[in-house]
Amino acid sequence: MLKIRVISGPNLNLLGTREPKVYGTQTLEDIENALRQEARDYGVAIEFFQSNHEGAIIDCIHDAARSGVHGLIINPGAFTHYSYAIRDAIAAVGIPAVEVHLSNVHAREEFRARSVIAPVCMGQISGLGALSYSAALFALVKKLEETRP
Amino acid sequence: MLKIRVISGPNLNLLGTREPKVYGTQTLEDIENALRQEARDYGVAIEFFQSNHEGAIIDCIHDAARSGVHGLIINPGAFTHYSYAIRDAIAAVGIPAVEVHLSNVHAREEFRARSVIAPVCMGQISGLGALSYSAALFALVKKLEETRP
Amino acid sequence: MLKIRVISGPNLNLLGTREPKVYGTQTLEDIENALRQEARDYGVAIEFFQSNHEGAIIDCIHDAARSGVHGLIINPGAFTHYSYAIRDAIAAVGIPAVEVHLSNVHAREEFRARSVIAPVCMGQISGLGALSYSAALFALVKKLEETRP
Amino acid sequence: MLKIRVISGPNLNLLGTREPKVYGTQTLEDIENALRQEARDYGVAIEFFQSNHEGAIIDCIHDAARSGVHGLIINPGAFTHYSYAIRDAIAAVGIPAVEVHLSNVHAREEFRARSVIAPVCMGQISGLGALSYSAALFALVKKLEETRP
Amino acid sequence: MLKIRVISGPNLNLLGTREPKVYGTQTLEDIENALRQEARDYGVAIEFFQSNHEGAIIDCIHDAARSGVHGLIINPGAFTHYSYAIRDAIAAVGIPAVEVHLSNVHAREEFRARSVIAPVCMGQISGLGALSYSAALFALVKKLEETRP
Amino acid sequence: MLKIRVISGPNLNLLGTREPKVYGTQTLEDIENALRQEARDYGVAIEFFQSNHEGAIIDCIHDAARSGVHGLIINPGAFTHYSYAIRDAIAAVGIPAVEVHLSNVHAREEFRARSVIAPVCMGQISGLGALSYSAALFALVKKLEETRP
Amino acid sequence: MLKIRVISGPNLNLLGTREPKVYGTQTLEDIENALRQEARDYGVAIEFFQSNHEGAIIDCIHDAARSGVHGLIINPGAFTHYSYAIRDAIAAVGIPAVEVHLSNVHAREEFRARSVIAPVCMGQISGLGALSYSAALFALVKKLEETRP
Amino acid sequence: MLKIRVISGPNLNLLGTREPKVYGTQTLEDIENALRQEARDYGVAIEFFQSNHEGAIIDCIHDAARSGVHGLIINPGAFTHYSYAIRDAIAAVGIPAVEVHLSNVHAREEFRARSVIAPVCMGQISGLGALSYSAALFALVKKLEETRP
Amino acid sequence: MLKIRVISGPNLNLLGTREPKVYGTQTLEDIENALRQEARDYGVAIEFFQSNHEGAIIDCIHDAARSGVHGLIINPGAFTHYSYAIRDAIAAVGIPAVEVHLSNVHAREEFRARSVIAPVCMGQISGLGALSYSAALFALVKKLEETRP
Amino acid sequence: MLKIRVISGPNLNLLGTREPKVYGTQTLEDIENALRQEARDYGVAIEFFQSNHEGAIIDCIHDAARSGVHGLIINPGAFTHYSYAIRDAIAAVGIPAVEVHLSNVHAREEFRARSVIAPVCMGQISGLGALSYSAALFALVKKLEETRP
Amino acid sequence: MLKIRVISGPNLNLLGTREPKVYGTQTLEDIENALRQEARDYGVAIEFFQSNHEGAIIDCIHDAARSGVHGLIINPGAFTHYSYAIRDAIAAVGIPAVEVHLSNVHAREEFRARSVIAPVCMGQISGLGALSYSAALFALVKKLEETRP
Amino acid sequence: MLKIRVISGPNLNLLGTREPKVYGTQTLEDIENALRQEARDYGVAIEFFQSNHEGAIIDCIHDAARSGVHGLIINPGAFTHYSYAIRDAIAAVGIPAVEVHLSNVHAREEFRARSVIAPVCMGQISGLGALSYSAALFALVKKLEETRP
Repeated sequence: MLKIRVISGPNLNLLGTREPKVYGTQTLEDIENALRQEARDYGVAIEFFQSNHEGAIIDCIHDAARSGVHGLIINPGAFTHYSYAIRDAIAAVGIPAVEVHLSNVHAREEFRARSVIAPVCMGQISGLGALSYSAALFALVKKLEETRP
Repeated sequence: MLKIRVISGPNLNLLGTREPKVYGTQTLEDIENALRQEARDYGVAIEFFQSNHEGAIIDCIHDAARSGVHGLIINPGAFTHYSYAIRDAIAAVGIPAVEVHLSNVHAREEFRARSVIAPVCMGQISGLGALSYSAALFALVKKLEETRP
Repeated sequence: MLKIRVISGPNLNLLGTREPKVYGTQTLEDIENALRQEARDYGVAIEFFQSNHEGAIIDCIHDAARSGVHGLIINPGAFTHYSYAIRDAIAAVGIPAVEVHLSNVHAREEFRARSVIAPVCMGQISGLGALSYSAALFALVKKLEETRP
Repeated sequence: MLKIRVISGPNLNLLGTREPKVYGTQTLEDIENALRQEARDYGVAIEFFQSNHEGAIIDCIHDAARSGVHGLIINPGAFTHYSYAIRDAIAAVGIPAVEVHLSNVHAREEFRARSVIAPVCMGQISGLGALSYSAALFALVKKLEETRP
Repeated sequence: MLKIRVISGPNLNLLGTREPKVYGTQTLEDIENALRQEARDYGVAIEFFQSNHEGAIIDCIHDAARSGVHGLIINPGAFTHYSYAIRDAIAAVGIPAVEVHLSNVHAREEFRARSVIAPVCMGQISGLGALSYSAALFALVKKLEETRP
Repeated sequence: MLKIRVISGPNLNLLGTREPKVYGTQTLEDIENALRQEARDYGVAIEFFQSNHEGAIIDCIHDAARSGVHGLIINPGAFTHYSYAIRDAIAAVGIPAVEVHLSNVHAREEFRARSVIAPVCMGQISGLGALSYSAALFALVKKLEETRP
Repeated sequence: MLKIRVISGPNLNLLGTREPKVYGTQTLEDIENALRQEARDYGVAIEFFQSNHEGAIIDCIHDAARSGVHGLIINPGAFTHYSYAIRDAIAAVGIPAVEVHLSNVHAREEFRARSVIAPVCMGQISGLGALSYSAALFALVKKLEETRP
Repeated sequence: MLKIRVISGPNLNLLGTREPKVYGTQTLEDIENALRQEARDYGVAIEFFQSNHEGAIIDCIHDAARSGVHGLIINPGAFTHYSYAIRDAIAAVGIPAVEVHLSNVHAREEFRARSVIAPVCMGQISGLGALSYSAALFALVKKLEETRP
Repeated sequence: MLKIRVISGPNLNLLGTREPKVYGTQTLEDIENALRQEARDYGVAIEFFQSNHEGAIIDCIHDAARSGVHGLIINPGAFTHYSYAIRDAIAAVGIPAVEVHLSNVHAREEFRARSVIAPVCMGQISGLGALSYSAALFALVKKLEETRP
Repeated sequence: MLKIRVISGPNLNLLGTREPKVYGTQTLEDIENALRQEARDYGVAIEFFQSNHEGAIIDCIHDAARSGVHGLIINPGAFTHYSYAIRDAIAAVGIPAVEVHLSNVHAREEFRARSVIAPVCMGQISGLGALSYSAALFALVKKLEETRP
Repeated sequence: MLKIRVISGPNLNLLGTREPKVYGTQTLEDIENALRQEARDYGVAIEFFQSNHEGAIIDCIHDAARSGVHGLIINPGAFTHYSYAIRDAIAAVGIPAVEVHLSNVHAREEFRARSVIAPVCMGQISGLGALSYSAALFALVKKLEETRP
Repeated sequence: MLKIRVISGPNLNLLGTREPKVYGTQTLEDIENALRQEARDYGVAIEFFQSNHEGAIIDCIHDAARSGVHGLIINPGAFTHYSYAIRDAIAAVGIPAVEVHLSNVHAREEFRARSVIAPVCMGQISGLGALSYSAALFALVKKLEETRP
């Protein structure tokens, strides 16, 4: 059974209660519940992790490799723009990863358009709100099933 | 019934027969057939357009507004990096659009990471091969249904 | 009799019906009608051309030379910012040209402040709405009459 | 009755007698006389000010607000490229302003293409010689009449 | 009663014992004691937090929102120059914040003059040594009292 | 008795009556009156100067040295961003200076975040409205008293 | 028999009659006639195409692949500096191409020295007037004969 | 007896098992064992620390000062390129440090060539694989012995 | 008889009494007295002007043209780095000018190495203290005598 | 009889024996022999020079002028990217020169695409291997014969 | 027996007698003598070369290949920052090389932090004074012995 | 007796016979003869050196230190813009040097305005033709006499 881990970075724990104009009114828990249901429909296992600590996210990516995770969905939050350490972690474990963003990072401050992590991911999805996560799950599951023996 | 138009830019007509390492072995027709099936499953109408001419793509975007298209999926190909004219066309017609790329534009030449069109789109999906189109359709349909009366 | 050709670039055909806050509520036809009347008052012939195709605009500039046009008023739209080909066309035919913009290109996104075409024009007028065209006609006619035998 | 103030910046007092290839052979007085006649034709009041002192130009812009001036035509000369103080003055008084340049600032040294003042003006006219002023007056009067009760 | 939280970032725990030429001879405890006294004089509650961990600082900012803190004084130390995650945390909780620096960040290495956090703060105070904190407290209390019902 | 001179640069004479959203509703006179009262409370002498002329501000800084001024509070307005001449004046006289800004210069146009004057000042305070001046006075008086024999 | 296609971009149709100081007095037809004779001497087939339309040039490159063309000589004119779409077309068809320029692109405006197309060509020849084409034909024929079975 | 502390940053715990082409097949434990032996040969004490958490590395550097460590060997991993906080920690404690990298940071992605930490270290060694650590120990011991009383 | 005018810009009136390490211990009056003597030796007339006001310096340059001055020696002080207005003034009057600096502008802050005025001067002399002025006078007199009828 | 001198810069003496994937398997002697034969066919004299010393190449260019050389073919090797001294030498002697490169300098490291020498040459040929030299000879001979009396 | 060649670039012949604060008090001969002893201890042959001539260093690198040298230690001095020709020489001969610097190039002028040569070396050691050479020898010998049959 | 050495860099041996519009009609020998006479008048010894070889110039600077030269006048020609090696040579020997240029380096191509050597010289003189050398001698002699015991 395919195992997907969803990692959310700094400030995403505040989702829904803060800045709803930019990030929508759903909480992270809402999104995770929806994804859990979708994963069930796809017949894949799904796990969630959120932290405001860069180091904890790196540890979690390392752990994914040890735990037999097949695919990562990662919303690195603001770490997107400078955490070469998370980039190296993803490259090191070699698990296919999709970077997601709730907002359209190309339509905001200039620094948000640049991801130091995306170059080592399989792809990137941005701007679709909670659907960025869903679309990533949709595509990742298909991709992993295609390339599986 | 929701109507989605899928626009593919320069050189995408060569898909499948050329540079399969970067762009995969599916032809554009293969992708369109798959999307047609998916659209049928979602119960939405879907139309396709491909051109190597920037002006023809702009005309097609204008036409979408006149034809009552509800959402655009656009792979601007290399126009992504300089066609401010296509950007203005999308902004002008005001139809929600998702920019898609087959390859991971963040993992190739530096100029490919910069889109002049994405800032006026709803979002961007890249790196998932033909699934970039499918994921865009998946999300666009959901989004349009959410925001519909 | 002096002959002036007015060339409008991509998306200007949508004028009036779209984004009125930025571009005003007049259609391109309204502007052309007003200019036609003004030209009549100045006693000069005037012709209009609009296209979303860069190549068609270049062809039209070449044609202007063959057709004995004395002055060009050109609103290159978004081509302003990257069409070195239109720049070269204007330089090649050697017809005095005034670049016009409806909006104040200096007060919007940074890329709009940079014109690759203006260096080969006689001058540039921006930010005056439809009056940018009128002011260009006003000045171009005076200029051409001054320098005429 | 509409009141327009025309402000000319550093070195424009030398006009006509110096560097005629770039700036033409008309003196500033010639231009002002022509404008005075044109203003009379339009039925508007017109005033002139020239100074080589940035501070004096700022004082003059402030004074315009106190004196009930309806529109400004300003040729900031070389201050165009660095006087954020004049920019702030125009923004502060909120009087519609048109920035004018005799020469085509886009066809000379690179620094001349960049105006720090234009972003707070209504528009910019360059490259038409003395006609830059005339075209600005032409457009400003029309604009002010349009938006007047 | 107004509640102010003072957050100090990496290496500020070493204050007083290290590099006194740049950062002065007072320890962080000295500064906090002085601020505690000043807060008592102003009749406001004050709390202190220091950490070398970016994630802990983000957690602390989130906690401030939950704990009813009215104003933040934050010296992000070196995080000032790259922690977009702390920036987003401050923007997310919406508590008025004043960024402070002991040294004059404009008079040192070039990278120190650039703050990625200041744009979401109310203001920034730098270069006054321990008085940067005191001046921030002075101003923040006045500001909060002004805008309070 | 300590003597402080407060210097305000271009356009600050318009304070209160113009652009109140950015700069508040207090006039410069209001601010000066409040500072005068605060100075009386601190037992220090205070003087005020405002000019739109860069040269006059330089003269005033030179004069401060001749007049035995102990500290400067300077809001250089837009000169902040390019007046290397004011920078050199402050460095030349060697009087401790605090640069102040009413608005948060880090949250506006990019050019406002860069001060060419701050590197030769003791520190900088921005974003606190009229309290930027008060906080500067507060800190400058304490600082001068600390370092006085 | 080797087949070579020569593609000339925007404004090259005006060759000979315009700007002879930069581009020489030969028409494009003159150059093509000379090349036709040289091709005959080399015993290779040669075809010519000129367009001011970027899309038409891309179509023509695609067609070259379908038509069994062995080598391309391309003078992209001003498209050289921004047409990533033509670049992708050449890379897609995989036909050896030599980029040519009549003028020395390194001795003119800075933007002319940068080619976005050359990186996917076999080589580049510039500055030799009509001989740039002849030298490209000379070398391309030799190269293709060398590498042919 | 001299005491050396070796600090390894993010992802170095994965050494040997991941990306062996770039980082070699030795585990971090292998390297530490080799260094332990070398330290014994030099007659110096050696300690090891690895963390994926920036804050933990800063804490460890502070602790080194309290623990009487004489020299640091630090491989900051990806923190090399942005952790001004680690830079400040090293500068604050004033312990001689040598920055080491297993791979040649000058022969990889451009961002890897830039270290924000090296300017406050004694020196930097890169590209020698595990020997980067050994060479650093070799030199650091000699250096410390030279400068010791 | 040749007439030379020596213009000194902002803060040069403080020479000798301030920052002697950078600018030497001579006052501007000392330098002028020395130059007066040297001029007498060369048999040329010499005049001096100093101002902290950019506008006054421009006025003085204009006046030089009216007064029959044959050569200018100008130390623009900090105006060197941004006063395009002074640059234009020198270009406008067409009097041969030598730009001088007391300190070596290439050995100080980076912004000091860039002169916006030097491109329109005959030459530039820096770093020789008061001798920069003397060397300029020496060379200017020789140059003017060479090129005089 | 026309005299052509072929100058090859640093490391070209190693040609053929080193890095054949980039530079081909022919030695410089092979290339020179082929060129000698071609020159004989064209009826022109040809001379060869290779050096790893920038100064020796400059001397050789100077000598070409003294020796009546009519045209230069120069492969400056890595000097292409920084030797302004060789650039000045070519400009000084005024002999028509063609810059050649064996590899496609536009398809390698970014620094290789920039030539500081090409702006003073007649043209540049790159990417054709040994044929770059042959094509240069071919074109240079034709060009010189055209412009000869 | 392994053969190592040590190459020192411009101005290193002055070592010890000049600028001892930056480069130490040892002469180059002192360093070479120490290295000679160390080489003897390692059982490897060692040779030394110093030149202020870029061309002579390139010749020496070429000669190393012909002479069967197994490893290079190179301190390119100031050539580090611009000699692409030395870079190409090292790449061409393919001998493993370690770049060394006496001073910490990351802690001095900005241009010193950038090496155009390091990307083709095995590694780089800087900041350890004469020990940079010793550490390079230490590591190079170990490396070569590891990879030797 | 003071001893001055005058060093001229690449292509200056061609002076007078080439590009007289930029560099004048005097040969280097003419300039040296004039300087020899001037030196005799000042009662100082003078020596001359010219080379197109960077290494030879460095050797000559080193030799100056050994030969008891008191001051250097150096025209580095095009080496001005990239020879950090010459820069280091001048810094190493510590002899006061004046950099001279015949032409106004600020009024030509942008790269000519930047000197990597000037920061370690006492000063720089440019644009005065042969008088740049004379003025340097004039000032250097005075300076050396002032600072001599």
